[in-house]
Parts: sequence; structure tokens; C-alpha cells
Amino acid sequence: MTQTRRIFTFVLRLLALAATVSATIVMVNSHDSTRVLNLTFKAKFSDSPTFTYFVIVEAIVSGYNLIILLLSSKGSLWRIVIILDVVAALLLTSSMSAALAIAQVGKKGNTHAGWLPICGQVSKFCNHVSGALVAGILAAIFYYVLNLFILYNVLNPLFVAKPN
Amino acid sequence: MTQTRRIFTFVLRLLALAATVSATIVMVNSHDSTRVLNLTFKAKFSDSPTFTYFVIVEAIVSGYNLIILLLSSKGSLWRIVIILDVVAALLLTSSMSAALAIAQVGKKGNTHAGWLPICGQVSKFCNHVSGALVAGILAAIFYYVLNLFILYNVLNPLFVAKPN
Repeated sequence: MTQTRRIFTFVLRLLALAATVSATIVMVNSHDSTRVLNLTFKAKFSDSPTFTYFVIVEAIVSGYNLIILLLSSKGSLWRIVIILDVVAALLLTSSMSAALAIAQVGKKGNTHAGWLPICGQVSKFCNHVSGALVAGILAAIFYYVLNLFILYNVLNPLFVAKPN
Repeated sequence: MTQTRRIFTFVLRLLALAATVSATIVMVNSHDSTRVLNLTFKAKFSDSPTFTYFVIVEAIVSGYNLIILLLSSKGSLWRIVIILDVVAALLLTSSMSAALAIAQVGKKGNTHAGWLPICGQVSKFCNHVSGALVAGILAAIFYYVLNLFILYNVLNPLFVAKPN
């Protein structure tokens, strides 16, 4: 049973690592340019502070996840890892939500604010961002399942007494 | 000691409730209009799907928090409440991050995408949104402290054995 649990969390971490690394790489490589009325219109992820934040968070969580995968889980650090896993989920949620909000404006625009959609002009850029966002959402989902599974096990009545 | 802990979590929940209720009310009441070249330019929170999402999340977390405050913490539901508190923190993080990303574009614009800042035209609206965002950030911080405190206590070696 313990062995099964360990394999399950290991696989979830591997999947989350694959998703965050993909999200980072795909977002970093998202660029496109188009010519409108003799003006070259370029788009890349670093044009938006939100997409830059997304890349930083996905890279940080990738690094953290890799360290946890390489370190033995037998150490005494497992309590701090539970807290750090929740922090990682919060960071992934934050970066994914912010990037989704900006991507939505990029795709649909906002007529009230006079912000025009840009995906018609730089569709290659938009496709890359969409791909990175899907990977980011998957990474967050893997972390939600991981956290739920770990917390469920920690809070199992067999292992814990009510703290207050 | 147990009594002190209970008072601390109660106060944190009260503060989080005050913050989420304030965020909801201030965001719902954010509207402004201006006239540019004989055109009336109106701004309200529901013009942006992100701000609407912010209001929905802050209202849901307010309701959840109120129920937990009214319910006795002596019941057998405390394990599910620990998980729900993490979910509430994730929801608050998501809505706050998305709203911050849009507010940043509203304030600074994005020259690369051709999105102009709107805060010069509808400053009253922007001030309201800023106020709601500050309340939303505070609500998230109160929930982070609450979760950290509860998880720290649950993971205390006195109460828990290593689950795997």
C-alpha cells in the first residue's frame, strides 16, 4: 500500500514536471510577426509582464519538482515538502489564471476598453500561447491531485489525532 | 494552548471574511463614465469577464467562510474543512491574479498589443478596482496564514505519524 502510494505521487510529480517544462519551453518560443500598412507588428511572450511571470513561475516549479524527484522521500523533510507542494499549487494557479485573463483579451479583445483582439494578426503567437496555457493548466491539475492525495493521506484518521 | 489556537484561526477567518466582503462590494460598485469627442465612455466591473470572475469567487469564499464561522468547529468535519480551506486559498489566488493582470493592462496599457491604458479616462473606476484588489490580496494573505497555521499544527510530530 505504501509502495503504491509512493509510485502514484512519483508519477504525478513526473507528469507535473513534463507539463511545467513544456509550458516554459512553448511559452518562451512563442513569437510571430505580421505586416500591417507597412508597419511590422511583432509579438513575443516578453511583451507582456503577465506571460513573463508565467514563464518564471513554470520554470521555478519545474526546478522545485526536479529537486524533490531527485531527493529521497525517506528524509525528514516530508513535512516541509507538503507545505511547499501547496505553495507550488498556489504559484501555478496564480500564473495560469493571470495568463488566461490576458490571453482571453488577446483572443476576444474588450470592446468596452477599446482593446482589439490580436490573434487574427499573430495567429502563430496565439497558438503557441494557447499550447503553453494548456500545459500550464495540466500542471496545475496534476498538482491539485497530488496535494489532495497527500493531504488526504496525512489527514487519514489512522495517522492523525485532531489537533485542536 | 488549544484555546489560543482556536481564537487565532477564528480571528483570521473574521479578517478574511471582512476582506472578501469588502472586495465584493467595492468591485460591484466600481463604475465611472467619461465623455470623449461627444461619445460617452462607460466602465463597470461587468465589462470584463475577469472582474466578474473576481466578484463571483470573492462572494463564494465569503459565503463559505461565514458558514465555517457559524458552524461549530467541534464537529467531525474538520478534515474536510482543512481541504476546503486550501481550495478557498487557490480560488482567491486565481481570481486575484487574473484581476491584477487585467488591472495592470488598464493602468499601463500594452503598447505591443496596441491596448491603451484607460485609467486616465475613468479614474474613479480604476480607484474602485484598485481598492477591491487590495482587499482581495489581503483576503488571500489571511488565507495563506490560516492554511500555513492549520497545516503546521496538523503536521506537528505530536499529532501525526509519517504516512508513507
